[in-house]
Amino acid sequence: MSKKGLLGQLIQSFCCLPGVGAKTAQRMVFYLLQRDRQGARRLAESLLLAIDNINYCPQCRTLTEDNLCSICADSGRDPGLVCIVENSADVWVVEQTAVFKGLYFVLHGRLSPLDGIGPDELGLDLLRRQLSSGLIKELILATNSTVEGEATAFFIGELARKHQVKASRIAHGVPMGGELEFIDSGTLSHAFNDRKVF
Amino acid sequence: MSKKGLLGQLIQSFCCLPGVGAKTAQRMVFYLLQRDRQGARRLAESLLLAIDNINYCPQCRTLTEDNLCSICADSGRDPGLVCIVENSADVWVVEQTAVFKGLYFVLHGRLSPLDGIGPDELGLDLLRRQLSSGLIKELILATNSTVEGEATAFFIGELARKHQVKASRIAHGVPMGGELEFIDSGTLSHAFNDRKVF
Repeated sequence: MSKKGLLGQLIQSFCCLPGVGAKTAQRMVFYLLQRDRQGARRLAESLLLAIDNINYCPQCRTLTEDNLCSICADSGRDPGLVCIVENSADVWVVEQTAVFKGLYFVLHGRLSPLDGIGPDELGLDLLRRQLSSGLIKELILATNSTVEGEATAFFIGELARKHQVKASRIAHGVPMGGELEFIDSGTLSHAFNDRKVF
Repeated sequence: MSKKGLLGQLIQSFCCLPGVGAKTAQRMVFYLLQRDRQGARRLAESLLLAIDNINYCPQCRTLTEDNLCSICADSGRDPGLVCIVENSADVWVVEQTAVFKGLYFVLHGRLSPLDGIGPDELGLDLLRRQLSSGLIKELILATNSTVEGEATAFFIGELARKHQVKASRIAHGVPMGGELEFIDSGTLSHAFNDRKVF
């Protein structure tokens, strides 16, 4: 059986998924075609529908099928509180905690000069305009706790300071349920430095 | 952001892939929509094309887009030698070794009475008819080396014996490059029992 043909093409196109190599792609394709054609059709159709209809919210840059995403359009949320995250998936993660009732701003990346990702690529001109409007009271910097994430948070913090807007960074420390034995020393030293009065 | 809507539907439809849970599905969907819409479109279109055009070969039951699969249609292959495998993916695996020049017969499963999978579900009536034709000289039993795989091989071996057709089982033993230290004792005892004159 040649690797060409529809089957080979399909396996190759599955390789574009993150974390999926040739073997996994092959397993997925055979599974779908032999066991779950209905699910496969649903997947393909949802994907085409999503590609054609899901775009970026003009206000917070998250992925949405509406003109304005459901969070930005929700009048019950506090427009004075804006959480900065690296990508749309992070919005979902924060939303699942149900603890945050403000708006978001999605960077779609982090500052990384070596990869050619500067302030313009992260939509910071849009953020600057939103800061200038005077509506925003606090920026919550929820970028990842990596070197680039921290640098990005620092950069945006400076931006907020220039516009006289308060900026805060989400807390770093020992995860809930975490045992000290298994925490890396960087996190632990952070947890000691940021200790709170009990 | 509600879990409903196109994005939620799409994430849910990715969960039908084997080994993909909600978190991985979410990661795949965000990756495709944010970074690789072209690849996503190619994936969806290939999948629809495959669902509509790939069916089972009427002779060997493997997945194919043709009326007769390219292996069965290849006059250069030996129709007297038939390799029995559990699924279409196994055909690819054996083909990649380029050592086998006969035909295949795909069971799409293994005997598993508890799951209601008997000889009829494995297409053994079709195999019986092919054995009766007198064209087949040898069946190579390449089902997996699991309890069900062995039982299936035994059952089909008996079938071959009834039709006076030789049946052989692929060798089991220490994998090439394998170190004895890391081989399980079942495999190793098999390797000792099936030792060859050196």
